This record gives sequence, C-alpha cells and structure tokens, in this order.
Amino acid sequence: MLVNGQHQNLLPVADRSVQYGDGVFETILVRKHRPVYWQDHLDRLIKACRTLQIPLSVSELCKEVETVLAANKADGALKIIITRGSGGRGYGAPATPSPTRIVQMHPLPLDYPDCAQNGVRLFRCQHPLSRNAALAGIKHLNRLDQVMASLELPVDAEEGLMCDETANVIEGIKSNVFAVVGGKLITPDLSHYGVAGVMRGRILALSEAILGIPIEVTTVGMKELRIADEIFVCNSVLGIWPVTELFWDAETLNFAIGPISRRLQTMHAESL
Amino acid sequence: MLVNGQHQNLLPVADRSVQYGDGVFETILVRKHRPVYWQDHLDRLIKACRTLQIPLSVSELCKEVETVLAANKADGALKIIITRGSGGRGYGAPATPSPTRIVQMHPLPLDYPDCAQNGVRLFRCQHPLSRNAALAGIKHLNRLDQVMASLELPVDAEEGLMCDETANVIEGIKSNVFAVVGGKLITPDLSHYGVAGVMRGRILALSEAILGIPIEVTTVGMKELRIADEIFVCNSVLGIWPVTELFWDAETLNFAIGPISRRLQTMHAESL
Repeated sequence: MLVNGQHQNLLPVADRSVQYGDGVFETILVRKHRPVYWQDHLDRLIKACRTLQIPLSVSELCKEVETVLAANKADGALKIIITRGSGGRGYGAPATPSPTRIVQMHPLPLDYPDCAQNGVRLFRCQHPLSRNAALAGIKHLNRLDQVMASLELPVDAEEGLMCDETANVIEGIKSNVFAVVGGKLITPDLSHYGVAGVMRGRILALSEAILGIPIEVTTVGMKELRIADEIFVCNSVLGIWPVTELFWDAETLNFAIGPISRRLQTMHAESL
Repeated sequence: MLVNGQHQNLLPVADRSVQYGDGVFETILVRKHRPVYWQDHLDRLIKACRTLQIPLSVSELCKEVETVLAANKADGALKIIITRGSGGRGYGAPATPSPTRIVQMHPLPLDYPDCAQNGVRLFRCQHPLSRNAALAGIKHLNRLDQVMASLELPVDAEEGLMCDETANVIEGIKSNVFAVVGGKLITPDLSHYGVAGVMRGRILALSEAILGIPIEVTTVGMKELRIADEIFVCNSVLGIWPVTELFWDAETLNFAIGPISRRLQTMHAESL
C-alpha cells in the first residue's frame, strides 16, 4: 500500500476522510498487471475531484499506480482513495488542501467467477438510499447507506438491491442494475441517487451498437422487474452477474440466465 | 489524543471511517475540566451506535474521556469519534466488530464569544442536504454535505444555512436554527435531514417551561424567516449565536438581537 507514494498503512486521525468522509475512491480490476477500463476510471476520478474541489495530481497518482502494479504479480482489485488531506477549520476545507493519495491492491474474492457463471440471488434491502442531486453519481467516501444495507443482507444472497424512499430501484449495494423488459434494456436513472459505475457507463455506451437492442435510463420498480426476461448486476471488478432469484419482501421471483447477460459478459471478457 | 486508550494520532487506512465514513461522533464543550451536557451527549452517542449497530464500550470510553480531561488544563472542545474499526468484506461489516474510539481535545475558536455577544451573519448555501429518514438526526461521519456547503461560505458570514431541495431550511452547517415568529419559537423538522443537536434538544425540552413561549417543530422557509422577530443558531460548543444578517440569494434581511436569544444564552450560561 502506498500513501502519498510512501509504503505505509497508517493515516493521521486528522485526515478529513476519517473526520468527514471527505474524499472519493475508485476500485479497478487488474488483469495481467493491467488496470482494466483505466481511462474510464481515471476520467471519473478526475471529474469527482473537480466536483468536490479536491486538487488531484494525476501524474503523481499514475506513478504510484504503476509502482503498486509492478509490485503485485497476481490479478486483483486496485483501490485508489483521494482525500482532501488534513487541516481546515471544522467542516471548512483548507484554502490550499494537500490531498492524501492511497493506492492499494486487494485480492479478488474467490466466489466471483462462480457468481458470473451461475448467477446470484438478489435481496431487496429496506435501508433507503440518500437523495441528493448534488452528490449523485459520484463515488465519494460517504458510504453509510451501503454499510447499513449490507447489515441486512442474509447469507443466502450475494448482492443487495437498494431503493429510494418510494421503493424505486436505484442500484445494488456494490453494483448497478439492469433488466431486459419487452425487448429493451432498462436501468435506473441516477440523477438523484447512486453511483454511476464504470461498467454501467460502458454498457450504456456500447450495448445498443453491439447488442442491437434499445437501452433506456428510466424509473425501475417491482412492476418492471416482475415482467423482466433477464436481470443482471454489474461493476467493473465483478463484471456481470446474472440474477437468478430476487427476494423482495415476502415475494421471490426466479429468472433464467438470458442471452443479453451472456453477450455482455462476452463483451466484458474481450476487454480483459 | 487517545485512540483506543493509547496515545497516538494515527489510524490504519483500513479503518472503516476512512473507507466509508462508517462511524459517529460527538463534539462537547469542556469548561473547568467538566464536559457540559455530558449525559445528553453520551445518550445520543449510545443511541447512534445502536442505530448503526456499532458495539460501544461505554466504560472504556468514559475512562478515556477522564484521562484526556485530566491532561488538559484549558477549556476546549472534546471530540469523540467511534468507528466500526477495520475489517469486514467491502461494505459488509465484520460479524464482531472491534470499534475504534478516538478521544481528543481541541482549543475553542477565539471568535466564538464575540459571535455570541454581537451576533453573526448567516449565508444561505446552495448545496442541498441529503434526504434520508433512516440516517436523519444522527451525528454520523458522512459529512460531505457540510464540507460542500462550507466551500460556498463567503468570508463575511460566520455560518451557513442549509436547506432541502425545495429551499426549506433544515439547519446551519455546524448548528441548528431557531426563529421567533408570531410569539412562537419555531425550528425545522429533522425527520428526513439534519443533525439533532444536543443544544437544540435542550431548547426543545426547557424553553417552553423557562421562557413561557410555545415552541413548534415545523416547516421553516423564507416565508417564516422574513417575518421573524429573532433568528438564532445554536450548538453545544458555540452556545447560542443571534443572527443579525441573513444573506439569501440576492436578498439581505436584518435582525435585532432579541430578548428570547438573550434569555436562552443566560439559560446556557447557567449550565456552564
């Protein structure tokens, strides 16, 4: 692990990530020493830092990423955290922040290939997502919603489904959600909630051209899921997980693993 | 500063406060070695930890607070942070968390007595508060909203006013807000947003009995503020700051420092 280029695994308590969750992060799949979808992740990180007004030294970050990648032989997940650093007066940020850059490799969970191959069970969590158009889409460090939803997750579900206050689906705890409904691929609108995932972005950008089916960002609720031909969740580290069972309150819905999910998995595999 | 009873000012990067803002905090006024409104703060901390399912050792915390208080001669602000500690799988918390307790004294800002005596200028921030009934009221570590609002604050305003998406007033950046309107004390409803401050709680509990004026938790917008006889902001460290000017978009409202604000300041002073 590197913190501002130094080998260490400690941080000052005064760091604003500890005090306020004042920062952003990325989690990136590494295959054969190569960070997959690197440009997409870097673009999103730069955009998030700009929104939060955290100055980011991209050249230093890239050097640190190279160092960590060179030191790790195995595939894994690269986590980058950028915080606003220490200082300021209470919530007030310092006039010229010295951000903290953290770059670290994690092993990939062993069950991920099986989840992609055989599908997963999705559990509808009761904890609602926080609504805020000013922070929606950004992968920031204020992640209590995801932590609280994870606490609800039963052992027989691999992923949780998170909704807004009125039970519209927004995303998975660690993923974005898509459904195939009436020959269309649909996914929730994230203008007020959620994280705009890199894999979601690729599917939005490429699937109409590659799969030839229309794609729509829209409202997604149980009404749509009940008539879905396929459901899948995705993120750039886990790839695409077809959903075979959905536990929504007292209701259980079953789904087959369909051709759209498989073709998107192939598209993803070709990027690796 | 004590971290789990040890003198140190570093934390593992793996701590869930860094990764997710997974924790809660309290900021407590210390006068003559005594933490003011201690029982209220401890009650709120225990309740917050229970909501987030973070096990808290109250006896160890109290010992650490005593140690820090004994080592500090001057008045100040005691900050307590409780995090869920390290571990777990991604957002998923460990089955038996080992929380991190951080106890630290900070000096009091030098301008606070002047703000209480002469009043403050309040600036309406554009950054909206996040809406979430499941987290509302809790002083948790997901504080990006307050950080973003602070970035808007001009140098000629001592506090920022934070609203919901529809411009209803919720709270100050670091305080709660009250107004005297038509002989009534009113303060925003916090069931979907905001931090339920200890000083706010004391005012709600005591002011009707002590001041003899009715108090109402309700919707507060510019409509109410325009006709207010007094506005003040409060928290347990700064006490009660009368508002003399409110900057709301292009509009500036002026207020006198009124008798209700002064009587509540007296009530607070008698608790010190």
